[in-house]
Amino acid sequence: MNLWNSAFSQRLHPLAWMYNESISFDHRMAQEDIQNSITWAGALLDANILTPDEFGLMVQALTAISESFDEGSFRFMPGDEDIHTAVERRLTEMIGSLGGKLHTGRSRNDQVSADLRLWLSNHIPVLQGNIQNLQQTLISLAEKWPDAVIPGYTHMQQAQPLLLSHFWLSHFWPLQRDTIRLVNTLAACRVSPLGSGALAGSGYLINRDLIAEQMGFCGVTENSLDTVGDRDFAAEFLFDTSLLSIHLSRLCEMVIIYSSFEFGFFELSDRFSTGSSIMPQKKNPDIFELVRSKSGLCTGNLMSMLTVMKSLPSGYDKDLQADKELIFASYDCMNAALEILCGALDTLKIQSQRIATSIDSYLFATDVADYLVKKGIPFRNAHRIIGSAVRIAKEKQIPLEKLCLTEWKALDDSIEPDIFKIFDPQFSISRRLSAGGTSKSAMLQQLNLAKETMKNG
Amino acid sequence: MNLWNSAFSQRLHPLAWMYNESISFDHRMAQEDIQNSITWAGALLDANILTPDEFGLMVQALTAISESFDEGSFRFMPGDEDIHTAVERRLTEMIGSLGGKLHTGRSRNDQVSADLRLWLSNHIPVLQGNIQNLQQTLISLAEKWPDAVIPGYTHMQQAQPLLLSHFWLSHFWPLQRDTIRLVNTLAACRVSPLGSGALAGSGYLINRDLIAEQMGFCGVTENSLDTVGDRDFAAEFLFDTSLLSIHLSRLCEMVIIYSSFEFGFFELSDRFSTGSSIMPQKKNPDIFELVRSKSGLCTGNLMSMLTVMKSLPSGYDKDLQADKELIFASYDCMNAALEILCGALDTLKIQSQRIATSIDSYLFATDVADYLVKKGIPFRNAHRIIGSAVRIAKEKQIPLEKLCLTEWKALDDSIEPDIFKIFDPQFSISRRLSAGGTSKSAMLQQLNLAKETMKNG
Amino acid sequence: MNLWNSAFSQRLHPLAWMYNESISFDHRMAQEDIQNSITWAGALLDANILTPDEFGLMVQALTAISESFDEGSFRFMPGDEDIHTAVERRLTEMIGSLGGKLHTGRSRNDQVSADLRLWLSNHIPVLQGNIQNLQQTLISLAEKWPDAVIPGYTHMQQAQPLLLSHFWLSHFWPLQRDTIRLVNTLAACRVSPLGSGALAGSGYLINRDLIAEQMGFCGVTENSLDTVGDRDFAAEFLFDTSLLSIHLSRLCEMVIIYSSFEFGFFELSDRFSTGSSIMPQKKNPDIFELVRSKSGLCTGNLMSMLTVMKSLPSGYDKDLQADKELIFASYDCMNAALEILCGALDTLKIQSQRIATSIDSYLFATDVADYLVKKGIPFRNAHRIIGSAVRIAKEKQIPLEKLCLTEWKALDDSIEPDIFKIFDPQFSISRRLSAGGTSKSAMLQQLNLAKETMKNG
Amino acid sequence: MNLWNSAFSQRLHPLAWMYNESISFDHRMAQEDIQNSITWAGALLDANILTPDEFGLMVQALTAISESFDEGSFRFMPGDEDIHTAVERRLTEMIGSLGGKLHTGRSRNDQVSADLRLWLSNHIPVLQGNIQNLQQTLISLAEKWPDAVIPGYTHMQQAQPLLLSHFWLSHFWPLQRDTIRLVNTLAACRVSPLGSGALAGSGYLINRDLIAEQMGFCGVTENSLDTVGDRDFAAEFLFDTSLLSIHLSRLCEMVIIYSSFEFGFFELSDRFSTGSSIMPQKKNPDIFELVRSKSGLCTGNLMSMLTVMKSLPSGYDKDLQADKELIFASYDCMNAALEILCGALDTLKIQSQRIATSIDSYLFATDVADYLVKKGIPFRNAHRIIGSAVRIAKEKQIPLEKLCLTEWKALDDSIEPDIFKIFDPQFSISRRLSAGGTSKSAMLQQLNLAKETMKNG
Repeated sequence: MNLWNSAFSQRLHPLAWMYNESISFDHRMAQEDIQNSITWAGALLDANILTPDEFGLMVQALTAISESFDEGSFRFMPGDEDIHTAVERRLTEMIGSLGGKLHTGRSRNDQVSADLRLWLSNHIPVLQGNIQNLQQTLISLAEKWPDAVIPGYTHMQQAQPLLLSHFWLSHFWPLQRDTIRLVNTLAACRVSPLGSGALAGSGYLINRDLIAEQMGFCGVTENSLDTVGDRDFAAEFLFDTSLLSIHLSRLCEMVIIYSSFEFGFFELSDRFSTGSSIMPQKKNPDIFELVRSKSGLCTGNLMSMLTVMKSLPSGYDKDLQADKELIFASYDCMNAALEILCGALDTLKIQSQRIATSIDSYLFATDVADYLVKKGIPFRNAHRIIGSAVRIAKEKQIPLEKLCLTEWKALDDSIEPDIFKIFDPQFSISRRLSAGGTSKSAMLQQLNLAKETMKNG
Repeated sequence: MNLWNSAFSQRLHPLAWMYNESISFDHRMAQEDIQNSITWAGALLDANILTPDEFGLMVQALTAISESFDEGSFRFMPGDEDIHTAVERRLTEMIGSLGGKLHTGRSRNDQVSADLRLWLSNHIPVLQGNIQNLQQTLISLAEKWPDAVIPGYTHMQQAQPLLLSHFWLSHFWPLQRDTIRLVNTLAACRVSPLGSGALAGSGYLINRDLIAEQMGFCGVTENSLDTVGDRDFAAEFLFDTSLLSIHLSRLCEMVIIYSSFEFGFFELSDRFSTGSSIMPQKKNPDIFELVRSKSGLCTGNLMSMLTVMKSLPSGYDKDLQADKELIFASYDCMNAALEILCGALDTLKIQSQRIATSIDSYLFATDVADYLVKKGIPFRNAHRIIGSAVRIAKEKQIPLEKLCLTEWKALDDSIEPDIFKIFDPQFSISRRLSAGGTSKSAMLQQLNLAKETMKNG
Repeated sequence: MNLWNSAFSQRLHPLAWMYNESISFDHRMAQEDIQNSITWAGALLDANILTPDEFGLMVQALTAISESFDEGSFRFMPGDEDIHTAVERRLTEMIGSLGGKLHTGRSRNDQVSADLRLWLSNHIPVLQGNIQNLQQTLISLAEKWPDAVIPGYTHMQQAQPLLLSHFWLSHFWPLQRDTIRLVNTLAACRVSPLGSGALAGSGYLINRDLIAEQMGFCGVTENSLDTVGDRDFAAEFLFDTSLLSIHLSRLCEMVIIYSSFEFGFFELSDRFSTGSSIMPQKKNPDIFELVRSKSGLCTGNLMSMLTVMKSLPSGYDKDLQADKELIFASYDCMNAALEILCGALDTLKIQSQRIATSIDSYLFATDVADYLVKKGIPFRNAHRIIGSAVRIAKEKQIPLEKLCLTEWKALDDSIEPDIFKIFDPQFSISRRLSAGGTSKSAMLQQLNLAKETMKNG
Repeated sequence: MNLWNSAFSQRLHPLAWMYNESISFDHRMAQEDIQNSITWAGALLDANILTPDEFGLMVQALTAISESFDEGSFRFMPGDEDIHTAVERRLTEMIGSLGGKLHTGRSRNDQVSADLRLWLSNHIPVLQGNIQNLQQTLISLAEKWPDAVIPGYTHMQQAQPLLLSHFWLSHFWPLQRDTIRLVNTLAACRVSPLGSGALAGSGYLINRDLIAEQMGFCGVTENSLDTVGDRDFAAEFLFDTSLLSIHLSRLCEMVIIYSSFEFGFFELSDRFSTGSSIMPQKKNPDIFELVRSKSGLCTGNLMSMLTVMKSLPSGYDKDLQADKELIFASYDCMNAALEILCGALDTLKIQSQRIATSIDSYLFATDVADYLVKKGIPFRNAHRIIGSAVRIAKEKQIPLEKLCLTEWKALDDSIEPDIFKIFDPQFSISRRLSAGGTSKSAMLQQLNLAKETMKNG
């Protein structure tokens, strides 16, 4: 059986069948397709295409089909070109030619759009849940060692001291932005295309708003021609997951570098790292590298979708069938990445001692400049004075704090012995009181904000 | 002058200077940088770093600099590495060492993020305005020939009749979705990074919320380390413009095809088309082809930004300097495309006669099927019956409407002479009453919705 | 069993195992991995790590494993992390601890690179064969109707008459360029990484050149550190297939447009097209649309690989594991596309009558200009004269050939009655004698060149 | 003046003119366009369209125009839409209506393709020269400290000792592969499109082979329709530069990480690094970060070109005008990156002491395993034994070399006191004798190979 060859005098070539089929991947939308059909049956009842009895029979059969998918007992047949065909074929086996009434006033063009929108509406929350789990993991890490200080970096050069908790939370907020984007995309998905027909709208008296409500959508699309060829929501989802994947790549990059022998901030758990087939001493951050590499897959998928859509004629074109595999791939790959990261981060050990010794005294240069500013020296001059101090100390190959008072005074006479108090990570940290800064109080405020954000999620 | 080389014993190599400079493009953010500095001066006043007198002098000078940019009289100097340096250099020329106080507690890392966010906040509305103009043009086109019927296509094959107005409006709604995305991106831009410092927050008592308010932002970023390395808003903007460019590519594709000799629906205006250097008869849709090609530029820019961000270490890295040229390029290119499309569409002529004759009788096959459904035949059977009719007519090489009643009755006895009323575009159109459908009443409702949408912006 | 956890005190977490495994896709390289191992065993024999007896046993066992893959009887075990582990595990089951000698002096880093290079060396010729089949199909089409004339287009506007054969051959040569690129990529693949070890080279006395020869490679890589992290050949292959996919997209675009009702040049075979679930009259070029959409997949895969490689640290990083799925996907997708296109093009019907009537007289404007040039008028003036003629004819809404001699003479007095001979497609065609032009003789020469090219492969 | 509007009754709208012009970027092909025209004039002489006198006048004028471009004295006029128009306009100013003969039998479609192919043919060697300069710099670095040993990394974890020279050379060979790709692309560019006309070939008796030879091309394109729409060579160039940019990104990534405080292998020169506006101690690897970011620009440009080409109708479409800006941007950006890298690498200081102390004893684990293999223990067992040793030493928190003989013997009785000789970087290095390995002799061989490669260009 197929749904379309009434006017054809020859059968589809087997190769063409194989090339055309989508059942191998769109079967994932089985439940959505059935929900779609049950709703549509209701619309046909309202439009007097189905009698109440026919409607009852049809819904009963569709419900049974739904259960067979749940149980894994649904049997696909060789001719099942796509999930829509499979369901209608089975329905007709069960209730005879009455099954042939289901497709009245509906086209696969609006049907597949509705299925995919519903699938995303059902699954974006799952992805959001996994993002939340990783956010929770980051919160736990931030709470674990609230006083640990690490060097902060810009350009991979030591810049200013940071609370380790501040570092962990810096990876919390990008995920929160991903969540917001997914909320927006979810809203874009939850608009009903049903009733758009093949391209021109439906010739039956159906209530699109009612159908939308029954499908759990929040509104209806505005133009039937636009509707059948619109995959903006798919591109948006692929963009959201691309940016998510890039956030994860940046987190992974840091863990990989911080776990190197030279940085030595973290030690990976044996349970989430692998070794080498030839070098027995190796413990490799494979998990983090694999997650990092997913940014390639996700951005490639986005590029695929955009390329497919580029200069496509309006109305429905079969090119759009490419949407589902891309969406499923990015969805699966991000869920797995988020899940594995939770485990891998949760079991990370912190090398406290090592971190403590890695704070270089040059890190406090900004604090010294601020010290001069308090004495009334314009910041730009203070920058120059400290710059000279740095140069002198580096030429002497001594830490900045080892310059003696005479040397400091030679640079600026207003410098007093209290300058030596500055070379203390805790002091430096404590000064960054501005909201979102790295002082403990600001960090704790931020932590609370993060927790609240999660609650309102 | 530069802002950073206090500790350096050698000057930057001229090649390195040229490679490093960004003034050649970031000068576009001059006004944003000055607004940023005026606001920051206020914060320094509140933090007692500036006296009221100093503040007054500084604001006066910055305002004068702003005016000089407006007038085009600002003179860049060879050492002006970026817009921030240029402004601070000029400020110091005007008010002496007091100018050196401006950068207190601020870093270029939070400053450049603020400038770019502000620039986007100022310019996204301009882009939205141009989108609105094109939407208005599409509305005008929809109103111009409210009764014209064209063949509708799926897979580039004639499918069902459509109102031409319905076609024009089908390109209105994608632009509306672009607008919504830009609204979301605008919200993402309007968050203040100021006070994040280089990476760890500010050591001065500044009120980030107040600063944000004065800058016209709606809130503050949550984590200073995340803030300085975050370019999500840039990627979002580049995605929005990519999808916009793809929508335009699809509209252009249709105009190009519909303007071919073979379709002949539209005739391009001489004012918006070009000819051939060798073929004197040619009138080419260059404008539409050029706009179509911009989808390449915009998606390439998106891909550039994502590639730049991929696995970047946290904190600020100079790689992020790539953001501005990409944003400016996509912004400029979309504004120009929208503007030229308004003109080119507005002057398009419709070949009414030609359109009318292009309606093929096979277009009404769905309507005939629906006719049978009304007689109680399940749609799937009706599809098969009409399929046979199509096959018979095509073998006879006659239009579908030329099948005689006997032939119809041979296919299904319930068919009556009223079947011949179906082969009328107006009748077919009038049946698509569902919301968003192509009937005139539904189209007029849609048109009203489009106008209201425009009003609510 | 795994190959690397000797120093680990805890087992890999099940989720981490699943995330890390590559057996689900790298099993496709089973034969290449075995050939690799047989060769390596020979190297170990030469290096006196294996005795001749041990070597004999090992090769016998590996050959048996190869056969079990051929027969489909190889049984994977739950711990088989990748194909290398699976083969070594099975080997050790068969020949005991002797199997543990195989990995001496070899790392998975050079092994996997060799496997993949070998896989591509074996499979690029398959892809080239499928390209040749499509080229052969295009040659057949060019030979089928050697005299049919179609309008040629630039900017989708009728430009000059073309032989249909010329059109078909215009899609032959891009495929030939694809072939040349694949030849270059094949050469890039056929360089042996074996002996590079994990990153530093091998500590055993092995002859890399000999190994390369036995593997069928043409040379050895020059630097072990570069070698283990090099995937240039993978990116090249993905670029080649991207450009191939784009060539196919352009061919498909033309078939789709030329098969529209309005152009009507081609009719699709029932065997290679599908219909609509709702519109019984539809015959859709789904196959061509699906092939067109593969340009999205292939360019996305290229972008994925480039993103993965971007700023990767030197040496081997696990990110590189992403290479294989991308390569397999693009390879499979292009082979299938080429195969289906052969069938779909081969069964295409030409609507000769329709094509004949679609030649518009304005197509001959360039020929008329050339007529004037022969009379000594500079081309630029001739262009202007014909431009005026076109304008006059269009205003009169008559074909260009219907202008009378008086009207022509008013434009330029040198025009004689022989001008009316120009409005003949065969005449226009016959003039394009330059190599690669559309005259029949040039086309036949081109056809011969195409056939010779095919012979030389 | 423009070249095409003879049949138009209205002038191009100013906005449309601006949108359509390409002179703002294609003026870079001025010399190529003139060379093209001089060659074409010769063809017109041979075809008796020009007399010898006319030819002489024309060539004289074109040569003068060429000189005016060289001197920078050529004056563009407001109507100069593109470089072809500008040159023909100027020519006509100089020699009157004779100038109007130049375009006989030529179209801008084949002309612009020839110009761009010639431009690339002229400029790819420049890029190759810059690549060679960087290769030379890497060779110099490899020769500078021939005995320095650094830890080698895989997965950013210390793996095996490497000669620093080996590391530098590992970045030489990717550039050599880039060179080979550019050689192939150069061959693809050097094929003459001239004589293809607008799409159908030329109607004049021209000798395409002769023209090609005079243009410095190596052959002619085979099909005129394919020719005018072919931009494969452009895509190839953009791919080559993408891969080049990615190679540079990987080199930069390593320099950035190795220049961190924690690794401390390199110190950047003041002349090629910049500081911070707020942190006086900072010395940032901006140059390397900027070069790293160019991988974004170049891959984005590639993606732009592929997107533009996707599903473009055959023949010439104006979309293709996008090719030049992409090519110029990638070309400029890679030349600048290569040049700056030479300077920045050349001035890098090596922190020898620091490097020496960063060799961790666990780096020798593979060497110890190989030691056991020599005693007849299968490698897989040796891996397990050393794995245990590593675990024991790590639990004791001692270097691997600090395990005592008793402990070693407890793991395997065949271990003798000579095991302690293994923990010596020079010994480890010296073992990697295989071609391309890191032993000094292999490295010197490699260095010679690199130098020879450079000589043969």
